[in-house]
Amino acid sequence: MTVYDYVRDGAEIYRRSFATIRAEARLDGLPDDVARVAVRMIHSCGMTDLVDDLAYSPGVVARAGEALRAGAPILCDAHMVAAGVTRRRLPADNEVICTLRDPRVPALADELGTTRSAAALELWRDHLGGAVVAVGNAPTALFRLLEMLDAGAPRPAAIIGIPVGFIGAAESKAALAVHPAGCEFLVVHGRRGGSAMTAAALNAIASEEE
Amino acid sequence: MTVYDYVRDGAEIYRRSFATIRAEARLDGLPDDVARVAVRMIHSCGMTDLVDDLAYSPGVVARAGEALRAGAPILCDAHMVAAGVTRRRLPADNEVICTLRDPRVPALADELGTTRSAAALELWRDHLGGAVVAVGNAPTALFRLLEMLDAGAPRPAAIIGIPVGFIGAAESKAALAVHPAGCEFLVVHGRRGGSAMTAAALNAIASEEE
Repeated sequence: MTVYDYVRDGAEIYRRSFATIRAEARLDGLPDDVARVAVRMIHSCGMTDLVDDLAYSPGVVARAGEALRAGAPILCDAHMVAAGVTRRRLPADNEVICTLRDPRVPALADELGTTRSAAALELWRDHLGGAVVAVGNAPTALFRLLEMLDAGAPRPAAIIGIPVGFIGAAESKAALAVHPAGCEFLVVHGRRGGSAMTAAALNAIASEEE
Repeated sequence: MTVYDYVRDGAEIYRRSFATIRAEARLDGLPDDVARVAVRMIHSCGMTDLVDDLAYSPGVVARAGEALRAGAPILCDAHMVAAGVTRRRLPADNEVICTLRDPRVPALADELGTTRSAAALELWRDHLGGAVVAVGNAPTALFRLLEMLDAGAPRPAAIIGIPVGFIGAAESKAALAVHPAGCEFLVVHGRRGGSAMTAAALNAIASEEE
């Protein structure tokens, strides 16, 4: 019978993982609070070079954290992002909202001539002011958010913008970084991104516990 | 007002994404069915070089697909993996099971001296024979599965083993590839992996629709 030798203690796995990341990743250029978030994002994807693609407004971690402590909702473009938010880390039992499967969305998408991911943001309007937005899947959702803000929609406190992929992902994140509409922001430039990385950023912002 | 120029048609975004991936990724060495799965995995993470780390048994896509068409359940180590499985792609309205939050799991973890992710597999036993397993988060879960199989637990049809991270992830996937206990398998060697990639593999196996 094969005996596998591996670490079975969850807390020890976390400790060693974060120690490995802090030893390997080039975190020196980052403010301490952003470095802490970067460590957790790297933990979610296994890639220490993620740091190279990180861009952010200097106040993003502080302001998003304040918003969460004040009870702000978390608006997610995808159910996987929402599923990745660790509820016990949230400081105010914050609402985690994903409107993608709302029955009104398919008709809205037809009407607006866009994807369901983007159309679902129409249903965010009442929650948007002061919220923490986490876009971890669809570039069209991030572009749509920028259009809505440009047209006068209420401003979220912070936008975590980490959609993934080949068509529009890099462009949507570049657009957010260039023109964040007065919001704090965090992006991973390029094609990389996704729901796990986005939820990890949110989880790190929500609680300083490693 | 800023006007953003981007593709808003979901079907067109998919078409262009998959075309870009097929143009850039080195898929020639893969059987057609594995290449189709690789394309969707790459789509989920934005990295065409994922192919370099892919390892599999030649029958994995065919056998896992057969199992799903015959109604096999999908056993996931993490709720994010389960959340990423596109239900309308499943051929037999297959059950998607994640036992991680079962109230028995913390006591099981204490008793077995392992993580909750690994202990949760004890509750898979009745479903394991002929199932499709999707481990996308915890290396300890994959190691535990190998131990259970080695000790005579019922064999799943296929194991999609793509845990992510720095402590045990690479080792657990190497262990599966070296000693798959008579099961079909698919892994991404190294540190990369995660729930999105794992769900993407499953979604591609479940339906040939791009």
